[in-house]
This record gives sequence, structure tokens and C-alpha cells, in this order.
Amino acid sequence: MNFPSKLIEEAVTEISRLPGIGKKTALRLTLHLLKQQEPVAEALSQAILKLRKEIRYCQVCHNVSDKPVCSICEGTQRQQHIICVVEDIPDVLAIENTGQYHGLYHLLGGIISPIQGVGPENINIASLLERIDKPHLGENVEEVILALPATMEGDTTSFYITRKLKEKGIKVSTIARGIPIGSELEYTDEVTLGRSILTRVNYSAE
Amino acid sequence: MNFPSKLIEEAVTEISRLPGIGKKTALRLTLHLLKQQEPVAEALSQAILKLRKEIRYCQVCHNVSDKPVCSICEGTQRQQHIICVVEDIPDVLAIENTGQYHGLYHLLGGIISPIQGVGPENINIASLLERIDKPHLGENVEEVILALPATMEGDTTSFYITRKLKEKGIKVSTIARGIPIGSELEYTDEVTLGRSILTRVNYSAE
Repeated sequence: MNFPSKLIEEAVTEISRLPGIGKKTALRLTLHLLKQQEPVAEALSQAILKLRKEIRYCQVCHNVSDKPVCSICEGTQRQQHIICVVEDIPDVLAIENTGQYHGLYHLLGGIISPIQGVGPENINIASLLERIDKPHLGENVEEVILALPATMEGDTTSFYITRKLKEKGIKVSTIARGIPIGSELEYTDEVTLGRSILTRVNYSAE
Repeated sequence: MNFPSKLIEEAVTEISRLPGIGKKTALRLTLHLLKQQEPVAEALSQAILKLRKEIRYCQVCHNVSDKPVCSICEGTQRQQHIICVVEDIPDVLAIENTGQYHGLYHLLGGIISPIQGVGPENINIASLLERIDKPHLGENVEEVILALPATMEGDTTSFYITRKLKEKGIKVSTIARGIPIGSELEYTDEVTLGRSILTRVNYSAE
């Protein structure tokens, strides 16, 4: 495609680097920005620049944070004896949106993946173990919930962390896998359905 | 949605102002940018800022241009006796991509729309008429092709411009409306099909 201006070409090139945005969408967005008042484009440009330059991560849980310690780790209103281990930021947002969890988090920043050359030393596992040995502020960890992806890599990571934590006498649990609420049995894949039978919940014991 | 950082919230707000991008997509893009090296986000930010701040428009045809007169108006390799009148930049790109047109352009920057309060004086019609009265460089306009949207507003604009140009003795034509190439007759809407019969092309006369 030939562009009438270098500036448009540059904007289209940069915008189309974003995931899920092709050249056509990038051009549509570029022409939209051209039609806007200058402050609109300026605000967008500034937000992107500040995001990448000024972002800080919590020293304790590795979540993004405006302060050295994030509001969840700092807050005394959260349960101090449970840590939920997740892969990255979107998982924290998803769990927080449920409103069902009131404990702390720990973000690994990735999962063990031998194919991609990611080993246990490349993700935040050491700091998780250290957090249990030398608790931060009011922390008094009794249980670690593993909320990692239900994939081979996720299971490998869960297995590795479980082994490390059991040495320290910490209770380790994982979020339940099973049939999503609202789903029909007949449309559920066989692996999920099979596992949900194996890990059935005993009603009579409750 | 609660965000763990003000910076993320700002970025999501600004990105989701773009057309067709909701909060969820904006969050996905924001987290993607966070994962990238700093120069990637910086380049995007700069491209957007420069686009809006440094963009210039051609004095003759109102297309975007890096110079006071764009490469199409300036170029002697274009036919100097035809002007194609379009609504805006994407239309020029679309026509240029066909490779079938070698004349000049004139961008109205909008179309007449009484409902939205856009009158003939709000779009670049005066400069089109002036361009015919006082030709720029080698221009010697004999024909104006109207390539405006096939809508009520487009037709109104075409009608207005046609009347103004006929006073000046300029030949006015409009791009053909009809059945798109590759389309089946039975799936074409009745207005298009009806018009394509009325404006049929006489083979025996060619």
C-alpha cells in the first residue's frame, strides 16, 4: 500500500505491531486520530509513553504498582495467611473481579516451559520461597493456592512449586478444574469431563 | 474494573477511545505494551504524536502531504485535465490501489449533511471551483469525476457540485453504480439491480 505521507506510514507501521491489529485496522485508527483534536492524540501518546517509562512493580508480589509495595500486599484488610500463585497480571484482574478471594498474590511472570527455554530460575519462584522463609510485614503464610493454566507447562510449574513448598510444610492447593457453570455435559471435552469425575466433590461428607 | 496501577488505567482509558476498541481489548494491548522493550512503546508513542503535530495538507487538493503541495498535484506524470472529487483520504488510497486512475484528486473533507449541520460552505467546494477558475501549475481541467458515497448525502453533494460546475462548462461524470464484479444477480439488492438496468451500457454502440 502506498501512503500519501511518511507520517501516516510510520503511524500505521507502529500501530500494526500491536497484537490482533493488521495494516487495514491500523490505517483506520491512524485516519481516526488525524480527524481528532490535537489533545486526544497527545493524551494517547503520553499515556503509552508514561505506562512504559514509569511503571513499577511491587517488591513483594511482582504485580504492577505505583508504589514500591502494592496496595494488596500493603493492605491489612487482606487475609495474610493465603497466597495465590498466578502467571501474570491479567490473572490477578480476573480473580479480583470474582470478589471471592481475599488473600494475597504472587506473580510468577511466566511459567516453566523447556521448549521456550524458561526454567524455574527464570520466573519468580525463588522470591516466593523467600517470602515464606522471611515473611513481609504481617504475612504468615499457611496455604498457597496454585492458579496456573491447565496446560502441560502450567502443570509442570505447579508440580515444581508443590514439591518445593511441601519441604517447608506449607499446605498447597490448586483451583478446581471441571465443567464451567452453565455448560452442558455433552459439549464438554472428554479430558475435562473425565477429570471432573475423578475429582468429584463428596456431598455427604460436607 | 479495578486496575492495579493508575498508569494502566490511564493507558486503557486512552486506548479504548479508539473506534472498535473496547476496555477488554485496550487492557490486552496495554499489557502487551508492558511486556515489550521500552523502544517499542516509545516508537508507537512518538509516531502518534508526530502524526498529529506535524501533518500537513496539500494546498491544492487537501490530501495529507509532507510538503505544501502533495506529490500527486506536483507530479507532471499525472493527467492534468481530470479531477476526481472524493470525500476523504481513504477514498484516495482505495482509488490509487486500483491503478486505473491517473488524474488528479480533490478531497472535500466531508459531505453535505443537513442533519449533521454540514453545509456546502463547510467542505472544500469553494477551493474546487477556484481551482478551475485559477488553475494551479500545469492544470487544465476539462472533466470532474464525482466519486462520492452512494448515499442520500453523497447524492446531494454530487448534485450541488454538478450544478456549480455546469455553470463553468466543465464536463461532470460520476463513477458507475451497479453490480460488483463476481456477484450473483439474485443476491444483489433491488435498488442497485434496478439502477444497473436503467444505466445499462450499450455494447453495440462501442
